[in-house]
Amino acid sequence: MTDKKINTCVLGASGYTGSDFIRLAARHSHINISALTAHSHAGKEMAEVFPHLATLDLPRLTTLDEVDFSGIDAVVCGLPHGTTQKIIAELPDTVKIIDMSADFRLRDAQTYEQTYGKPHQANELQKSAVYGLTELNRADIKNTRLVACPGCYPTAVLLALSPLLGSEVISPDDIIIDAKSGVTGAGRGLKQNTLFSEAGEGLSAYGVAVHRHSPEIEQELTKVGGLDVMVNFTPHLVPMSRGELVTCHVRLADDASADDLRSTLGTHYKNEPFMHILPQNTYPATQHVRGSNQCHIGVFGDRISGRAIVIAVIDNLVKGSAGQALQNFNVMFGIEETTGLEQLPMFP
Amino acid sequence: MTDKKINTCVLGASGYTGSDFIRLAARHSHINISALTAHSHAGKEMAEVFPHLATLDLPRLTTLDEVDFSGIDAVVCGLPHGTTQKIIAELPDTVKIIDMSADFRLRDAQTYEQTYGKPHQANELQKSAVYGLTELNRADIKNTRLVACPGCYPTAVLLALSPLLGSEVISPDDIIIDAKSGVTGAGRGLKQNTLFSEAGEGLSAYGVAVHRHSPEIEQELTKVGGLDVMVNFTPHLVPMSRGELVTCHVRLADDASADDLRSTLGTHYKNEPFMHILPQNTYPATQHVRGSNQCHIGVFGDRISGRAIVIAVIDNLVKGSAGQALQNFNVMFGIEETTGLEQLPMFP
Amino acid sequence: MTDKKINTCVLGASGYTGSDFIRLAARHSHINISALTAHSHAGKEMAEVFPHLATLDLPRLTTLDEVDFSGIDAVVCGLPHGTTQKIIAELPDTVKIIDMSADFRLRDAQTYEQTYGKPHQANELQKSAVYGLTELNRADIKNTRLVACPGCYPTAVLLALSPLLGSEVISPDDIIIDAKSGVTGAGRGLKQNTLFSEAGEGLSAYGVAVHRHSPEIEQELTKVGGLDVMVNFTPHLVPMSRGELVTCHVRLADDASADDLRSTLGTHYKNEPFMHILPQNTYPATQHVRGSNQCHIGVFGDRISGRAIVIAVIDNLVKGSAGQALQNFNVMFGIEETTGLEQLPMFP
Amino acid sequence: MTDKKINTCVLGASGYTGSDFIRLAARHSHINISALTAHSHAGKEMAEVFPHLATLDLPRLTTLDEVDFSGIDAVVCGLPHGTTQKIIAELPDTVKIIDMSADFRLRDAQTYEQTYGKPHQANELQKSAVYGLTELNRADIKNTRLVACPGCYPTAVLLALSPLLGSEVISPDDIIIDAKSGVTGAGRGLKQNTLFSEAGEGLSAYGVAVHRHSPEIEQELTKVGGLDVMVNFTPHLVPMSRGELVTCHVRLADDASADDLRSTLGTHYKNEPFMHILPQNTYPATQHVRGSNQCHIGVFGDRISGRAIVIAVIDNLVKGSAGQALQNFNVMFGIEETTGLEQLPMFP
Repeated sequence: MTDKKINTCVLGASGYTGSDFIRLAARHSHINISALTAHSHAGKEMAEVFPHLATLDLPRLTTLDEVDFSGIDAVVCGLPHGTTQKIIAELPDTVKIIDMSADFRLRDAQTYEQTYGKPHQANELQKSAVYGLTELNRADIKNTRLVACPGCYPTAVLLALSPLLGSEVISPDDIIIDAKSGVTGAGRGLKQNTLFSEAGEGLSAYGVAVHRHSPEIEQELTKVGGLDVMVNFTPHLVPMSRGELVTCHVRLADDASADDLRSTLGTHYKNEPFMHILPQNTYPATQHVRGSNQCHIGVFGDRISGRAIVIAVIDNLVKGSAGQALQNFNVMFGIEETTGLEQLPMFP
Repeated sequence: MTDKKINTCVLGASGYTGSDFIRLAARHSHINISALTAHSHAGKEMAEVFPHLATLDLPRLTTLDEVDFSGIDAVVCGLPHGTTQKIIAELPDTVKIIDMSADFRLRDAQTYEQTYGKPHQANELQKSAVYGLTELNRADIKNTRLVACPGCYPTAVLLALSPLLGSEVISPDDIIIDAKSGVTGAGRGLKQNTLFSEAGEGLSAYGVAVHRHSPEIEQELTKVGGLDVMVNFTPHLVPMSRGELVTCHVRLADDASADDLRSTLGTHYKNEPFMHILPQNTYPATQHVRGSNQCHIGVFGDRISGRAIVIAVIDNLVKGSAGQALQNFNVMFGIEETTGLEQLPMFP
Repeated sequence: MTDKKINTCVLGASGYTGSDFIRLAARHSHINISALTAHSHAGKEMAEVFPHLATLDLPRLTTLDEVDFSGIDAVVCGLPHGTTQKIIAELPDTVKIIDMSADFRLRDAQTYEQTYGKPHQANELQKSAVYGLTELNRADIKNTRLVACPGCYPTAVLLALSPLLGSEVISPDDIIIDAKSGVTGAGRGLKQNTLFSEAGEGLSAYGVAVHRHSPEIEQELTKVGGLDVMVNFTPHLVPMSRGELVTCHVRLADDASADDLRSTLGTHYKNEPFMHILPQNTYPATQHVRGSNQCHIGVFGDRISGRAIVIAVIDNLVKGSAGQALQNFNVMFGIEETTGLEQLPMFP
Repeated sequence: MTDKKINTCVLGASGYTGSDFIRLAARHSHINISALTAHSHAGKEMAEVFPHLATLDLPRLTTLDEVDFSGIDAVVCGLPHGTTQKIIAELPDTVKIIDMSADFRLRDAQTYEQTYGKPHQANELQKSAVYGLTELNRADIKNTRLVACPGCYPTAVLLALSPLLGSEVISPDDIIIDAKSGVTGAGRGLKQNTLFSEAGEGLSAYGVAVHRHSPEIEQELTKVGGLDVMVNFTPHLVPMSRGELVTCHVRLADDASADDLRSTLGTHYKNEPFMHILPQNTYPATQHVRGSNQCHIGVFGDRISGRAIVIAVIDNLVKGSAGQALQNFNVMFGIEETTGLEQLPMFP
């Protein structure tokens, strides 16, 4: 790692994941934000689109075509799902790419097509992409050019369950994930159900059994589980801006106890700077990770013998997206992994 | 039913269930609110304790001792759990009692003691109490003197699952209930975790596997299930004031489908004024029942074959407490069941 | 008043004011909801647009053209501002009209054009419209065919200040109105600043000195003040769905005190069913009027000698719009004024 | 400034201002957190009291008596108002003190007694304390041993108005401050009106004309205004955790315009790292400063000739308390003023 700053272009700077990456990157000692694109806002100052960043000295928003990629070292992509494939395929080979969209997460072309309703447009690239869950995949991330950052739900679920499944202390059958997300998870697009007056003071389920994050979770659990894992996945929309909590109802392997699960996770993550396994009888809360790159996990024995409940919380925009992207960025460029991610949770 | 108004005393008028009962009862054509007790606020006007009721002409708050029960026809009890038994035992025989506390919900004295940590103090009365889930127990409610209104979580869970278990379209094993409640569920007592700054903009689990509503759910499911039912019950605290959503992950009986579950519920509740079974692919939302006595239920097939998800929503203070109390009141006094409960959900 | 129900058509049933009128009217003993229009949702069931009304038996949504006005007695209009004039001008003479839009509120054609940026298209009708602040204008409302319901802010401000100005206990100069509204005040249209993630957990000013409700307030205050009143009007957007609070900083007339103001209001409103003047040192709160047609007003002496602070709270969708529309409806049709508006505030 | 870390003790670590100071200080390159006191929680780990700080390696909470002040360089005090005077008076002379309580803000002993209801117990010390509004008082802060950090409301008001009054572009008469705060402004103590179910989805006024921050504002405005300034001050409680917005309705000096006010502020603060004067027609919003030490100010011309509206927003726990305390800490110890305060606003 030299002292030269890494010239970074953010694609899709007018969305929440883009802006949260900029918020973090602007205070990162090795990043120079060189270009920002935002299709429909091209020509504007960032201050007009995100007034909370008005005090930064940032480049003006442009279209993608206006970016000169010759001096760019890294591209961080916060574009909507489905729009990213061709764009990334055409980037110069010299550029490292951290993609926060869903476009390169699924390895299987057919699963992609089934899940997103159209064929993948960059099959070769898809094969070479590394699934960017840093704690579980650090070595591969270090050596790739293209990282596909996980969805926010899969991040929380996989951090909670992958080590347990890999250690065979839980059963791969009958994994029931009851997931809850704050409203930023739905993005900045204008939708009636994310208006304050509609989402506020209320709780609803959505996408039951058909949410696009299920195949992603199954792909990664199958990797460690050694057989085809299928999960129940039921998401809910919670009246808060940031935060995600996944309640995983699992079946214990023979002889295993909830305490075993807790200690398995503790051992697995003992050197991880962002992972925090909670002591017995301590309940995870999204407000205790808000704004940080941390993931807190609690494990609880069930009243039904042979079952346990594993609960993980993250900030969906940080560890669930922009923070994890920056963590991967650090790994890819050989920078200390916590750089730019030192912020503690903001409570209250 | 004569035209004479029913003289009603509300015990515990300074709590949320008490005040919400008063809100509804004050507009009930057959109720006369004769006395209101509130231990630590005795002597105050209701307007000082609940300013939203300031425009009503209500009796001043008193201690229990000051109430002359000779002219009272009905007592509605919103006292804290554990304080109700002796008080109710000493009421005159002529008084009908609708208890919103937990004190008379559990039939088994031992289960009560295990759950609430001390022996029951009115065992005989406990045996005679009727569990007041109106839709499931109407005939018994009509003929009893003491109704024990269900807890808010059990109300939602039992309305969703009892008819399914009774019809044998779901398995009594492996019932996983992931429950979510607004903050009023914790009452008006001063607790750090229910401060706005602590509960706001955050989501947490609590009472995992040890919540006191589990035995109550199991008692009633066992009744219809015909064998000892044990459930997983995991509650969460949601940053909203009112509303409760329970996500029940169930195993289908052989040959049964999610559609069967939906039609079973539809048939079972077809004449019920407060039950609304949602059409396929419609998601229940607490904001769509807010302030009303309604319960909405949606049924969804799972990705895992042989499983389904049944989701019910209620307003925890209305159908989950004061509204159901009034519904039982109507049944007990032979009044049209919807009287005083006509209010439509308030959205947004 | 005969027993025949009043056939009522609601124009703009897919907005918040339209749906809240339906919520109230559906429980009104003399109203029959005969037709509902919603331009872009024509053909749908109301349940699809507002699931909280799914249990009602309502007519399907249609376009305006599909409505047969021959059997209609009343039209309640919740259309967007600027779209109402021509539509109302073409309604049959036999129909009474309660307009919740801004189109007929301003008497002066020039002020209308300045404020709304285009000439009024129904000048004759505009002249005959009555400004529908029930408490201040009841006699005229009773005898007109077209009522223009006030904006939500003007409702709260005028209820607080008109009697004070009319009684000459405050000065017409130097009236400073610091106003705060919940997010439903911005309607159901899709706007970035009313998304949950943008409006939540934050407070901002908007429309300072240019808000369209200022001329409306001035028109009505000038009527009672006897000279051209000009007000400072600064609105703010508050992270709550319903509720409006206006803090009016006023200059006392010579010899007048804050107590005089309170007693002037008390006397003025002593027979009004929805007006509640708070005792000394009691603070108005929007949560204490939520969902009701009530208006609470508190008066406070200032530290600066010769000044006072008058604070009024209403539910912007009820007393600020649909509730007041129904109140006017009752007046116009000779029905008891509180009919359909008996609901008490819902707290918490 | 040497490389040696500054040993810092935080008094009152279990409150919001204390914990937010720790959150910031834990990432400060020159601070070593040596001791933490919390009377009723003595003996606990910080993780039990504030789980969001569980990943830090912090000293255990102790009573005040247990602290060995011999090695302490700085004391930051987040104790409740009224409890601080004697404690601070007894600290060794070698310790620099940053007090976030109200105890040393008022210079006049009589005003203190009138405002807080009892005589000041450390009169000599009170005289030597410097009022710690960094931007307005930097030179004195640099050279004192005891800084009294301003209240959250005075911080926002004085940053907005002091330069305007000092430049004589506004009149010292007739300053009307309509203030709004999030719920953390009320602290972590258990009060009914700050419960989620009471404060949520509602807005209320409180402390009208009697709030304790008025004398503090007047003391400091009088300093720059050159004559006794008296202000109208009306606070409101807003359903959000963090954030404060003050709407100052002011009278322009002859010839001055709103543009003059804006440019006066722009010039005055042009080298200040945390001050941001918004361009014309841009509305301040608390969500755009959340979690940061920034203050945004917007200026608007009024409809009433000769008046203007000046609106300032801050995060009440950061610039309004813990952040400003750290800013003063930096000034007192000769550290770069932005150290530890680089965090950008977190939006959404």
